[in-house]
Amino acid sequence: MRNLKIVLAYDGYEFAGWQVQPGLATIQGTLATAIGRITGEKVLPQGSGRTDAGVHALRQVATFSLESPIPAENLVSALNDMLPPSIRALEADEVSSDFHARKSAKSKTYCYRMYREPVCPPFLARYVWHYPYPLEEGFMKQAAALVIGEHDFTSFAAVDPERMRDRDAAESDKRHESGLQTEESPRGNVRRILDSAWERQGTELVYSIRASGFLHHMVRNLVGTFLLVGKGTLKIGDVTRILQARKRSAAGATAPSNGLFLVEVEY
Amino acid sequence: MRNLKIVLAYDGYEFAGWQVQPGLATIQGTLATAIGRITGEKVLPQGSGRTDAGVHALRQVATFSLESPIPAENLVSALNDMLPPSIRALEADEVSSDFHARKSAKSKTYCYRMYREPVCPPFLARYVWHYPYPLEEGFMKQAAALVIGEHDFTSFAAVDPERMRDRDAAESDKRHESGLQTEESPRGNVRRILDSAWERQGTELVYSIRASGFLHHMVRNLVGTFLLVGKGTLKIGDVTRILQARKRSAAGATAPSNGLFLVEVEY
Repeated sequence: MRNLKIVLAYDGYEFAGWQVQPGLATIQGTLATAIGRITGEKVLPQGSGRTDAGVHALRQVATFSLESPIPAENLVSALNDMLPPSIRALEADEVSSDFHARKSAKSKTYCYRMYREPVCPPFLARYVWHYPYPLEEGFMKQAAALVIGEHDFTSFAAVDPERMRDRDAAESDKRHESGLQTEESPRGNVRRILDSAWERQGTELVYSIRASGFLHHMVRNLVGTFLLVGKGTLKIGDVTRILQARKRSAAGATAPSNGLFLVEVEY
Repeated sequence: MRNLKIVLAYDGYEFAGWQVQPGLATIQGTLATAIGRITGEKVLPQGSGRTDAGVHALRQVATFSLESPIPAENLVSALNDMLPPSIRALEADEVSSDFHARKSAKSKTYCYRMYREPVCPPFLARYVWHYPYPLEEGFMKQAAALVIGEHDFTSFAAVDPERMRDRDAAESDKRHESGLQTEESPRGNVRRILDSAWERQGTELVYSIRASGFLHHMVRNLVGTFLLVGKGTLKIGDVTRILQARKRSAAGATAPSNGLFLVEVEY
C-alpha cells in the first residue's frame, strides 16, 4: 500500500463542510468519490482537520492509502478532471507510511476576512464577513495578542459534547505523536497559540491565527469576541478575563462561516 | 414622476441573465421585486443592455420612473437591504426625464477574463474561462486591433433572428438619439469599435472592448475567434477575412459566459 498526501483548495460555500455525511455534498465525500472513479479503490481521505459548512481552504491536506500505481503527479490532473471547479487538487506526493494529515500536523493557520466598506462587491460575498460599521481596529489588534501562548479555550469552544469528545480523542493522539507538548501539558481544551493578529489589507480587516490545534468554532468565536472589543462593548483586557472564565457564555457570538479560510497546515 | 438612474454590480452566475423571464431568477426581475417592496410601485427597470445567463457586471446602468419621494441615496441602502448579496446597488441619482439607460448610452465597455495557469483557484472559477493550454498571446493582441473601427459584425453575431430583430430596433433608436452615428451610417449589424485589446494581467489574459453597441454574443464570439488565432488555427489576418465573410460560420465558437463582465456604460 502506498501512502498519499494531497493538498487541496476549496470554496466551501456550497458544501456541508469537510466530513462525509449521508445525502449531503461534503469535501471529503466528493474527494472520496473522485479517487474511487480514478483508481477503483474505496478510500476515505483523512483531512488535517474538519472544516465546517461554508468554510474555505487555501491548502487543506489529506492522506489516504492506495494500491493503484498511478504516479502522484498524474493524480493531480486526474482529480482536477473529476472534481467540481469548487475543489482543486494542488499537489500530490507519496509519503512514508507513518505520515498522517492530522496526527503529523505541528500547527495550522487560519485567517478570517472582514470586509469594511459600505457595499460588499458581489464577487466577494461568499468569502468575507461584510461588517461596514465603526470598529476601533487598534483595540482589536491589542486584544488579539492576549490569546498568544498556552491557554484553556473552553470559553471559545462550541458547546457540542458529542463532537468535543471526538475532537479530544483526536487531539490526544496528536499530542502524543507530534511531541509538540510535554507529558506535563494540560489536557482538555488547552491549546497553544503561536500567532494571533489583526491586519488591515486595503478594504479588508483580516485576522490570522496559528495554533497547535483548534477547538470547534474557536476561530469564529474569537473573531466574534474581538468584534465586541472593536465596538467598545468589551475592553481589551476582558479577553483575558473571558479565557479565565472557561465558559462559552462569557465570550462573543460565533462569526459567520464564510469569512473563514484554512490557510496552511504546518508539518 | 421622477426618473431614476441606478448603477449595479452583479455576479451573474446564478441568474438566467438580465431580462425578466417567467419562473427564472433574473437581474431585472429581482431588481423590480426589490423596488416594488421598497416603494409599493410596479416598475420594470430598463438596463443599458441585456446580459446573458452567467455574465457579470461591474457597473450596469438601469433607469426607471418612480412616484415615491424616496431620496436617491436612501434608495441605494434600501435596495442593498432587499437584494441578494449577488446584486449590489452602487449609486442612484435622479436624472432628467429624457435620460434612458440604453438609448442615451454612447458606448459600453466589456472585458473577458481568461485564466492561464494549470490549476484555476476555486474562488475564481465563476469569473474566468480557465484555458491553460499554449497560446501565442502576441498574435491575439495583433488580431484584436483588426476589429477597431466600423465593421459589419454579422460573422460574430448569434444566429437568433427573434432576438436580433428586437436588438436592431433598440439599436436604431439609439443611433437616432445618441447622434453617435450619422444618417449615412450603415445599418443592421454594423458597429463601431473604439478599443479592442488583449492584455496580460498576471495569471490572466484579459480582453477589453469598447464599442458603440454590441450584437448578441458578439464579445464571446470575438474571444472564441481570437483564441483560434492564439492556437495557430487561424492567421492574424484571417480576422479581417471573417469580418468580410458576414457569416456566423466563418468565425470561432462562442466562449463560455462566465468570463464576461460588463465593465462600464459611457454616456
